[in-house]
Amino acid sequence: MAVENKEKRDIYDLIIIGAGPAGLTASIYASRYKINHLVIGYALGGLAFDAHKICNFPTEVEISGAELTRRMQNHMEHLGGKLLLDEVRDIKRDDDGRFRIITQNNQEEFLTKTIVLAIGTKHRRLNLPEEEKFLGKGISYCATCDAMFYRDKVVAVYGGSDSANTASIYLSQVAKKVYQIYRRDKLRGDPSWIEQVLKNEKIEVIYNRRIVGLKGENKLEKIILDNEYQRKKEIEVDGLFIEIGTVPDDKLIKKLNLETDENGYIKVKNDQQTSQEGVWAAGDITNNSNNFRQIITACSEGAIAVNSIFDYLNKNK
Amino acid sequence: MAVENKEKRDIYDLIIIGAGPAGLTASIYASRYKINHLVIGYALGGLAFDAHKICNFPTEVEISGAELTRRMQNHMEHLGGKLLLDEVRDIKRDDDGRFRIITQNNQEEFLTKTIVLAIGTKHRRLNLPEEEKFLGKGISYCATCDAMFYRDKVVAVYGGSDSANTASIYLSQVAKKVYQIYRRDKLRGDPSWIEQVLKNEKIEVIYNRRIVGLKGENKLEKIILDNEYQRKKEIEVDGLFIEIGTVPDDKLIKKLNLETDENGYIKVKNDQQTSQEGVWAAGDITNNSNNFRQIITACSEGAIAVNSIFDYLNKNK
Repeated sequence: MAVENKEKRDIYDLIIIGAGPAGLTASIYASRYKINHLVIGYALGGLAFDAHKICNFPTEVEISGAELTRRMQNHMEHLGGKLLLDEVRDIKRDDDGRFRIITQNNQEEFLTKTIVLAIGTKHRRLNLPEEEKFLGKGISYCATCDAMFYRDKVVAVYGGSDSANTASIYLSQVAKKVYQIYRRDKLRGDPSWIEQVLKNEKIEVIYNRRIVGLKGENKLEKIILDNEYQRKKEIEVDGLFIEIGTVPDDKLIKKLNLETDENGYIKVKNDQQTSQEGVWAAGDITNNSNNFRQIITACSEGAIAVNSIFDYLNKNK
Repeated sequence: MAVENKEKRDIYDLIIIGAGPAGLTASIYASRYKINHLVIGYALGGLAFDAHKICNFPTEVEISGAELTRRMQNHMEHLGGKLLLDEVRDIKRDDDGRFRIITQNNQEEFLTKTIVLAIGTKHRRLNLPEEEKFLGKGISYCATCDAMFYRDKVVAVYGGSDSANTASIYLSQVAKKVYQIYRRDKLRGDPSWIEQVLKNEKIEVIYNRRIVGLKGENKLEKIILDNEYQRKKEIEVDGLFIEIGTVPDDKLIKKLNLETDENGYIKVKNDQQTSQEGVWAAGDITNNSNNFRQIITACSEGAIAVNSIFDYLNKNK
């Protein structure tokens, strides 16, 4: 039976790749439109999942990324949307124009007429030689996930925009001391977070400095700055949270040969269509929404993409 | 004191006109950005408020427009946003580039550096001579508001897209019989609603017909079709719900001299800026979001507009 099923594979009308706010909203709209679809994603909730506190989602005064994700997933599943927690390894276009999607873990293959690429972005790395070695041994890209390992310890946060600022605020509730190191002379982003950082006594912001080295035996012990701070270039820390922004993951972008802007984000038209027929993109991975990457803008792009796909599928029946 | 206050009027950095999803989200973002602002609107929640059931807002399986509005208003007020329930009567630009906004009820004047116009759309009228006369006497533009007056009665819904379909479904729970009259040969919009209309035994869809007349003594008694249906041009009804779409309200658009598209919607750039410096627009009134007018796209546009205004105000300090 299993073999037979594998032979007689369903052809989906739509496969949504990515299970963050854009992908989950796309599925909700697809279900309402009765589009036969599947969501494939390995990180439920995407980067939003890791947000400790979200204070600008319109209907919620305050909500965690995990709870927001749970609600969208619940809505999606309530409408009959199916989610496969797996990574897409390869995409090929068949001669008839259909896409063949191969996943990582189960080596499964899925056929679909259209795609929404909603794979978001990944954390930008420092690209220092020791960075990989200390990952999970002092180095983290997620304060919400790892703060608890640093109770009453000394940590550093690297960066100066919203994600760095919120990481410092959150870590200050757990750690003994938080150094926030930033290459510019002024923090950026939401002024409400900046105000909280600046009046927090546990947080010491070190401006105009870059991290140029990492030291330690089996775990991170010291970070090295490019210029002296209080007459030292080295700061002893138990942990370092790297929050220097995000970058688009270009693996699937390249496989699909999609046009991108100078920063690597997928160029989309008003209806979220990419440069390739049959492929739409939504959420942080695109250059739409005036490059303002928010949960609410990602959701909106997911909805717009599926509305456009609904018309496309009806025209190409 | 009152007089003195009127003389020494505050200058706002931003006034948001409209209190629907776009305007309320704009206020939430403005508060997070610490932008000194005020929301002026006469219809809290906008057209969304009247929605009986919303099933595609990503975090809610099902929610009423009133409840969704209450949550956004709560969030807005929690962050310190101020709402003035009033209509804007006039807007003038002073020589220094600031805007002078005059409201209807209190004849108050407010000064502001920037504006977000988020006034949404209004119901399209039939434009029949008797339409005004029967308003509230058999004719309604809001099933959610007025359905209860038609318990066990016979009603008609005019239209065939989402708002007409949901009006029929809702009315079928109350009325004895619902005629849904539509000028095309097939219902449009969300197929989930269409399915519910078509299998509902209380709803009878009359295709390819237009309403060309309204009859009655003191209240609506009959509607007249352009072509016979079951050998009659007249249908006896107790109520008629007109759901033939929405149109932008052009009063303030004209006062601000904003460029519009061929349907009257405000043309905006990627960052929601209009053709006039200092004026942004968001929500149903714009031609953005690929003209897909949804609560989630309106919220997104409100967020994008304020993000752009934050940069503008910082540059023009």
